[in-house]
Amino acid sequence: MPIRYPNGKKFIQKRIPDKKKSDYKKDDSFSNRGMSFEDDIQESNEYYRVHEKAVIHKKPTPLQIVNVHYPHRSAAVVTEAYFQKPSTTDFNGVYKGLYIDFEAKETRNKTSFPLKNFHAHQIEHMKSVLSQQGIVFVLLHFRIHQEIYLVPGSCFIEWFDNKDQARKSIPKKEIEKNGIPVSTGYLPKIDYLAALDKWLHNQ
Amino acid sequence: MPIRYPNGKKFIQKRIPDKKKSDYKKDDSFSNRGMSFEDDIQESNEYYRVHEKAVIHKKPTPLQIVNVHYPHRSAAVVTEAYFQKPSTTDFNGVYKGLYIDFEAKETRNKTSFPLKNFHAHQIEHMKSVLSQQGIVFVLLHFRIHQEIYLVPGSCFIEWFDNKDQARKSIPKKEIEKNGIPVSTGYLPKIDYLAALDKWLHNQ
Repeated sequence: MPIRYPNGKKFIQKRIPDKKKSDYKKDDSFSNRGMSFEDDIQESNEYYRVHEKAVIHKKPTPLQIVNVHYPHRSAAVVTEAYFQKPSTTDFNGVYKGLYIDFEAKETRNKTSFPLKNFHAHQIEHMKSVLSQQGIVFVLLHFRIHQEIYLVPGSCFIEWFDNKDQARKSIPKKEIEKNGIPVSTGYLPKIDYLAALDKWLHNQ
Repeated sequence: MPIRYPNGKKFIQKRIPDKKKSDYKKDDSFSNRGMSFEDDIQESNEYYRVHEKAVIHKKPTPLQIVNVHYPHRSAAVVTEAYFQKPSTTDFNGVYKGLYIDFEAKETRNKTSFPLKNFHAHQIEHMKSVLSQQGIVFVLLHFRIHQEIYLVPGSCFIEWFDNKDQARKSIPKKEIEKNGIPVSTGYLPKIDYLAALDKWLHNQ
């Protein structure tokens, strides 16, 4: 049974509690810097689930397991495993019969959003989902400005595919123009479904 | 980059290569016995994906990570982690705009399918998905008979919810009556989307 806070919110143990903040800056290959933003999205997903608005989950971090020990009959301990790059986006689920698929990232940049934390195979996944008529988007968080934008997948894919030719990041102005602002609050913390409704309504 | 066989099929390392078959019988809390059935489904998913029929993935095994070492700047090694019970089903994705969600299990029983390998929170997840108009089902594999059935989620949930009152397993006859037979072959190995089409067509 999950441990819960008095307000019913699930207690989620941080993935790597003993990792120092300074470690994150050394290595760009993991997207751990987005952790608290991800936590907030997971809380919002929990709110949506409990209130029967949507069923959206974060996929577990893929690990390549190399060694497992069995000290007891019932407990298996993984003693050697390596982080793998995910082949899909982090979040997916169902909302009013629609298949929903998205990736969430944040930056401390003030004027543009770097694309380096998105992988080419994630973009391939987004394209495949679009061709199956799924709903695809990205949530981009400007941490300094405390602004979040929902950018439609087709738009984001266009930016990414032009990345090598033109630029390694997207100007904030362009995100403001093409994205839908996501309002934040107490419950849910990040109301991205409201932004999604706006987008779908205007299509 | 993933390693591939000459036929383009992805090489997927077995999760616990050094675990003996006899170990599985000791502990029912992990569903490792279904591994090769799962592999076949993942190959079928890969076939569907490459042929742009559907985008369906298995979720990574959820692990609670307790310790991580950083021997080099770029390589993180997980040195202590524990298997967690998944809170959702194993497979989900999108097919012709429809949200697809299912669990796959197998048995060596000849006349009935035991329900003990399904967890209550997986059934709760199925109910939530149904309430969002998602497509939910289970794939049940009778290994001795080499027969696979697609059982609609609503039907399976009914069986599971009656479990405590009545029985711990479902008679094969009842599965034959309510399920749709899944044909197997070379490519795809397990053509569950054909069975799904039959079911959706008759609804």
